Amino acid sequence: MHEKELIDSVNRLEDKVVAYRRDFHKYAESGWTEFRTTSIIAETLQKLGFEVRLGRDIIDPDSAMGRPHSDIIKKHMERAVQQGGNREIIDKTEGYTGVVGILDTGVKGPTTAFRFDIDANDAFEAEDDTHRPFREGFSSVNPGAMHACGHDGHTAVGLALAELIVNHLDILKGKIKLIFQPAEEGVRGAKAMVKRGVLDDVDYFLSGHIGFGLETNTICPAVSGFLSTTKIDVDYRGKGAHAGANPEKGNNVLLAAACAVMNIHSIPPHSGGITRVNVGVLNSGVGRNVVPPNAFMKIETRGENSELNSYVYDKTVKILKNAADMYGVDCRIEKVGESITVKCDDELAEIVRSEVLKLPFLKIIEDRSLGGSEDAAFMIERVHQRNGRGCYILFGSAVAAGHHNEKFDFDEKVLVNALLVYTKLLMRLNNRKGD
Amino acid sequence: MHEKELIDSVNRLEDKVVAYRRDFHKYAESGWTEFRTTSIIAETLQKLGFEVRLGRDIIDPDSAMGRPHSDIIKKHMERAVQQGGNREIIDKTEGYTGVVGILDTGVKGPTTAFRFDIDANDAFEAEDDTHRPFREGFSSVNPGAMHACGHDGHTAVGLALAELIVNHLDILKGKIKLIFQPAEEGVRGAKAMVKRGVLDDVDYFLSGHIGFGLETNTICPAVSGFLSTTKIDVDYRGKGAHAGANPEKGNNVLLAAACAVMNIHSIPPHSGGITRVNVGVLNSGVGRNVVPPNAFMKIETRGENSELNSYVYDKTVKILKNAADMYGVDCRIEKVGESITVKCDDELAEIVRSEVLKLPFLKIIEDRSLGGSEDAAFMIERVHQRNGRGCYILFGSAVAAGHHNEKFDFDEKVLVNALLVYTKLLMRLNNRKGD
Amino acid sequence: MHEKELIDSVNRLEDKVVAYRRDFHKYAESGWTEFRTTSIIAETLQKLGFEVRLGRDIIDPDSAMGRPHSDIIKKHMERAVQQGGNREIIDKTEGYTGVVGILDTGVKGPTTAFRFDIDANDAFEAEDDTHRPFREGFSSVNPGAMHACGHDGHTAVGLALAELIVNHLDILKGKIKLIFQPAEEGVRGAKAMVKRGVLDDVDYFLSGHIGFGLETNTICPAVSGFLSTTKIDVDYRGKGAHAGANPEKGNNVLLAAACAVMNIHSIPPHSGGITRVNVGVLNSGVGRNVVPPNAFMKIETRGENSELNSYVYDKTVKILKNAADMYGVDCRIEKVGESITVKCDDELAEIVRSEVLKLPFLKIIEDRSLGGSEDAAFMIERVHQRNGRGCYILFGSAVAAGHHNEKFDFDEKVLVNALLVYTKLLMRLNNRKGD
Amino acid sequence: MHEKELIDSVNRLEDKVVAYRRDFHKYAESGWTEFRTTSIIAETLQKLGFEVRLGRDIIDPDSAMGRPHSDIIKKHMERAVQQGGNREIIDKTEGYTGVVGILDTGVKGPTTAFRFDIDANDAFEAEDDTHRPFREGFSSVNPGAMHACGHDGHTAVGLALAELIVNHLDILKGKIKLIFQPAEEGVRGAKAMVKRGVLDDVDYFLSGHIGFGLETNTICPAVSGFLSTTKIDVDYRGKGAHAGANPEKGNNVLLAAACAVMNIHSIPPHSGGITRVNVGVLNSGVGRNVVPPNAFMKIETRGENSELNSYVYDKTVKILKNAADMYGVDCRIEKVGESITVKCDDELAEIVRSEVLKLPFLKIIEDRSLGGSEDAAFMIERVHQRNGRGCYILFGSAVAAGHHNEKFDFDEKVLVNALLVYTKLLMRLNNRKGD
Repeated sequence: MHEKELIDSVNRLEDKVVAYRRDFHKYAESGWTEFRTTSIIAETLQKLGFEVRLGRDIIDPDSAMGRPHSDIIKKHMERAVQQGGNREIIDKTEGYTGVVGILDTGVKGPTTAFRFDIDANDAFEAEDDTHRPFREGFSSVNPGAMHACGHDGHTAVGLALAELIVNHLDILKGKIKLIFQPAEEGVRGAKAMVKRGVLDDVDYFLSGHIGFGLETNTICPAVSGFLSTTKIDVDYRGKGAHAGANPEKGNNVLLAAACAVMNIHSIPPHSGGITRVNVGVLNSGVGRNVVPPNAFMKIETRGENSELNSYVYDKTVKILKNAADMYGVDCRIEKVGESITVKCDDELAEIVRSEVLKLPFLKIIEDRSLGGSEDAAFMIERVHQRNGRGCYILFGSAVAAGHHNEKFDFDEKVLVNALLVYTKLLMRLNNRKGD
Repeated sequence: MHEKELIDSVNRLEDKVVAYRRDFHKYAESGWTEFRTTSIIAETLQKLGFEVRLGRDIIDPDSAMGRPHSDIIKKHMERAVQQGGNREIIDKTEGYTGVVGILDTGVKGPTTAFRFDIDANDAFEAEDDTHRPFREGFSSVNPGAMHACGHDGHTAVGLALAELIVNHLDILKGKIKLIFQPAEEGVRGAKAMVKRGVLDDVDYFLSGHIGFGLETNTICPAVSGFLSTTKIDVDYRGKGAHAGANPEKGNNVLLAAACAVMNIHSIPPHSGGITRVNVGVLNSGVGRNVVPPNAFMKIETRGENSELNSYVYDKTVKILKNAADMYGVDCRIEKVGESITVKCDDELAEIVRSEVLKLPFLKIIEDRSLGGSEDAAFMIERVHQRNGRGCYILFGSAVAAGHHNEKFDFDEKVLVNALLVYTKLLMRLNNRKGD
Repeated sequence: MHEKELIDSVNRLEDKVVAYRRDFHKYAESGWTEFRTTSIIAETLQKLGFEVRLGRDIIDPDSAMGRPHSDIIKKHMERAVQQGGNREIIDKTEGYTGVVGILDTGVKGPTTAFRFDIDANDAFEAEDDTHRPFREGFSSVNPGAMHACGHDGHTAVGLALAELIVNHLDILKGKIKLIFQPAEEGVRGAKAMVKRGVLDDVDYFLSGHIGFGLETNTICPAVSGFLSTTKIDVDYRGKGAHAGANPEKGNNVLLAAACAVMNIHSIPPHSGGITRVNVGVLNSGVGRNVVPPNAFMKIETRGENSELNSYVYDKTVKILKNAADMYGVDCRIEKVGESITVKCDDELAEIVRSEVLKLPFLKIIEDRSLGGSEDAAFMIERVHQRNGRGCYILFGSAVAAGHHNEKFDFDEKVLVNALLVYTKLLMRLNNRKGD
Repeated sequence: MHEKELIDSVNRLEDKVVAYRRDFHKYAESGWTEFRTTSIIAETLQKLGFEVRLGRDIIDPDSAMGRPHSDIIKKHMERAVQQGGNREIIDKTEGYTGVVGILDTGVKGPTTAFRFDIDANDAFEAEDDTHRPFREGFSSVNPGAMHACGHDGHTAVGLALAELIVNHLDILKGKIKLIFQPAEEGVRGAKAMVKRGVLDDVDYFLSGHIGFGLETNTICPAVSGFLSTTKIDVDYRGKGAHAGANPEKGNNVLLAAACAVMNIHSIPPHSGGITRVNVGVLNSGVGRNVVPPNAFMKIETRGENSELNSYVYDKTVKILKNAADMYGVDCRIEKVGESITVKCDDELAEIVRSEVLKLPFLKIIEDRSLGGSEDAAFMIERVHQRNGRGCYILFGSAVAAGHHNEKFDFDEKVLVNALLVYTKLLMRLNNRKGD
């Protein structure tokens, strides 16, 4: 297919991809509750002729981290139906969100996977005329859930890509896998897909993110600097008591938690590289005059590599346990998210670079470090283990406010850019005429 | 009036006082939001012929501690109307709850005040058949508000006492004041009534509490051991930052708060007597990967006397300010409750004792220490300053669970007992035939 | 013996008892190193005809707490010889100080014991003309050891009492035991004497202290308020590391110790009574740029009774262990002192009172609380267990500065007063003519 | 001069340089007390014909950090005389150690400075036959002072270089400055020499260190990774009190210090690069039963650059002040050492490299990072400010134990190697025949 023809073909989808994005933005769903999103993706893919996989076929329940309790899941399944989801599809998920769509060209060739994360953030969207989604009527109708990171755009690109694939099936070979992953926020969902084998037949893996400080019309072909990370929820339980009458009868859980916080933040730095730890949330106590009998903490550790993350993580756990025991307090630690460090495949990165170079209106930015965590890393690692090649791309886009901010919004021009780059790559990797 | 006659007269009110109690229990209202309660008290007193005072006539707004924001007050005023309150009366309160009813006999004599606290606790009542109020259909219909301390009983006794007074007006002299105080929980309301002058003409002051570990049909004539106390809310504000990418850009408010908690609980004991301090609640943080930009704490200090409470309070404030400054964090401290130590008047205590002795089915328990705080202390102090006499009585009652517990309930037999004791005391102090 | 005669007999010893006191003051020896003191006591008692017991005959080595290492003991034994101690006697101690002198009258009667503590404090005496011992040339010649509590006076009274006993042997019956106890400071020595059986035949036990805030010529016949206490030394060992190059390689012992200190001082107060805890000394670290590999702490816990002391002690130990484990640090805890709560025997107290009343120049002060710890309590407890009677007396004396101060000195008039009271009591309890 | 000739000339000095080293090792003197060392250097240089400068001529007293009190200085001046120092020279120092020797060739040319640090560590040397200096009789005779870093070797090389210079004066041009700097340990002395102008006429500056993990016969021509650092001593003073009787009367300084320690170690890492902080020493308390009235801390902060060091330093000071104020404790902070980050001059580094390459028995090791602090950085910075060139070299040497260890010793072969490299460099930079 000629460059010009492809670009036109992509541009014709611009209105559609924007409409998809705004629909997902409006019906934002947080990690593991993306039932309406899942339903729409599945229906769309089915109509296009993809084989659609759902629920336990693509998610290993034991590896699904940070998932809400089943009654909350049920409420969200119900809400999804009320907001236009397909009940039949939603029931089929058995409570596990995410979709994998597979298209087999029937012609021998590589299996290429594209991964899109579909969840929103736990955030309240700004209700303010300076915020375009609110002004133009597509801000979130679901309180406490907001697409403040751009995954609405990722999902929209995925559906538009599906349509393009089908439109150009005659020139493609091999197999194409579109992986719509739930619960990327908090790095909770990717591992469950990997463990279920979703990546086990993939030769080329491509994923990416919009925004991240890059201007519109720029592309970073291969990001580095994925931080290894572990997310834990900590539940401390002790014994309350009247703080005036019988202070000795309590096990003061707030003191135990304060002790843990102080000491966790005192873990020494490491000469081997960057480490981080954060007790991001602490809630403790039931009343002013009661010795606090409970505390809940949200904690994350990070490291430039897995060893460094383990260094901080192990010390954190040791401190948490000893601080609890010091006060006779029960301590339950639940791992609710996890990701690793990974390096993009050099050869695939070079292919990305060369394809982007063919699009002269896009500018290449090299050497970008993520400086954060992204659980696509588990997928890339799995692909590399099988000698496949994985790469993670940044698609530049001006933003109205930083990622995770209540006024986050992005220049929707990035959507066709991303679509174009993915399409070019697919045409290169799975082209019937190719090597 | 003969003993027998009086007892019969009180017993005839038993059903009524129980009915009052259960009604107040069902429509429980927390401190400063007792609008339906206020309305019913005011209406009842008016009908009985009392002069009724409300709002700023009995409350000094500047001394009203721990009062919710005005929009919350408004919502509760509205709810009170919906739950049967009289809109006219409620409007008259101008947002300040509580009632003072005055009856002047026209005959020269002392002014005797009885004080009843009317607020519920901030608690969710048990919904469980083992809990009588739930089983019998009078548990709280207002989520988050529950009479778990017995103030519903106090209020009921107050209304029944009003009726008895009117019925026996011909044998009474002087003036009778019935003080229905809002917001005793958290020791927030009494000071505002004292500052408004409600106690300034009182010669005898009587108040009391049901329960407190004494069995049904026992009475402690004069309690000691009121702890001096101060309640504060603390608001810390700092600066959030991405905990992985830019930890140095935040002012970690959770660390400041944890530091404050540790050091506040390290304030040394005092050789002069009992001191207490409790950080009962700490809530901090907005997300796992964000340096916590905020913290809210509920704290109380106590002492066997005002000096000891000040010792702990001053150190607490100093620690709070320095811990905040250490991290470049803003610190706002609001005093939301306060009470003092006081000693019952010996002569009035002796009168209580002698009147109870005349009721052979009641057993006297001496030397009870409150071991907690009660802002009636401000009222007693004020009465003593004017050379009046004040006393605080415990009315024994078996309870189903401890005070402030979600299953708190009491033996309603205490209601007539309390009513009887108060009536006897009034007949003694304000008897036309008396000295 | 007539009152007048006894008083004269005591007064004749005034110069001698003062001389004894000043000699002991000058050659002050700290707990477990009182070899010269022991030697002089033993020699004096021997000459007077007492049976003298030393070393393991009176000390149970396993119960001797807070004793220095054997090489330090040896150095002090040598010093004692150089300062006039008798080498033969000192060798006989086998390193364990203290003396018990026994005199059996041969006439059937009770065994009465008097106990005198003989050790100095670990303190440097003021070298200043405002300090009488320095000005008059009897201040301590042993750096780091000073009689700053008055035990020099106690010992002097003991030797004078021995002489009086011998002088009046003809009117006494039963057995008299003079117990010169080592290492009372830090409550280290009494238990070892009790465990060795020194108190097992005692019917009456008397001990006391000079000073303690009472004026000269006053006597408190029976002190209350002995605090139960435990003294511990804590040794933390971790791993050093270059703080700049490899901070992760160390186990930061100072952080572990700081964590322990903060949490130990946060142990909640107890509604059952007074508790105390103090980390009195912390020494940690080897150099500015080294992660601290060591820490040493001196800690004490106290309680109004044994349960309250145990409450604080158990929590302290739990905190110490968890704080160490939190940092991977080794923790060794050694008990170096201990005492208990005890109540004087009422009947013996009454006897003391009545004997003091016979001395009109002495004023009785009642209801004094020690407010501290004194290991004579172990001895009294042992005597009481065998149905004997024990009492602890305060002998008032003006002091130049508080106990343990570098300028402590006392009005030596107290010496004859104490001697007189002890003599009177002995004449009463062991009088041949008595019941 | 031919290579061979030069090498022979250096080798002939081997015995002498070793003898110098062992003499300095034996009479180790800590920073600012190097009076004997100063005396010997000055005498030797004088005899060789150098102009010798001492005391306030080369030290700015106001910039001399971490200097002991004047009475300690006096004692060490006296000791130096007793250990063979020249009283006249020592008096001339007026208490300020260090020597600058200047030799002007009289021929126009550059001024080249060599800097040698002369102080020992505050350490007790191993007395153990496995330790060669002890076994061979040249271990330190001054308790608490030990050459455990190799400055004895540096000083020895400096004196041997002086002799070589004089021997080859006929082929040299320009001016040669030999700077013998006191108090490098704790980075206390260099700034005072810079402030006094010692570096103000220097065109080439060379210094270096032996050991540092490099094997014998290796050379790193230009080290990087000098950490910016600040050293502070902190003195906290509060009020003691009897911990049992009147805990409220004390200002617990140990609690203040423990609070400071915990929070200092919680200073967040910085995304801009490496930061370090260490409370290396904490000593607090006077007795087990006394609320600790005092604390002394040795602290250091470091950063990859001055901004990062300031980031940590400013936060440390803020914490120290607030922790003190929290407990009503006085806080005095004294800066006792300081150094900066610096980069060797590229051109001079290249010259070093090329000269070492001419010595085939030496192996070049590149890219060594100091990972610590060295106050020669102040000198290099000053030289660079004047457009001169500075370089810092590592001279490899096997060591018996790590730097600062009580068994530190080095392979003395390094002494001739260093001497050779310095001589080669001087011959290159100040050669009359050179450019």
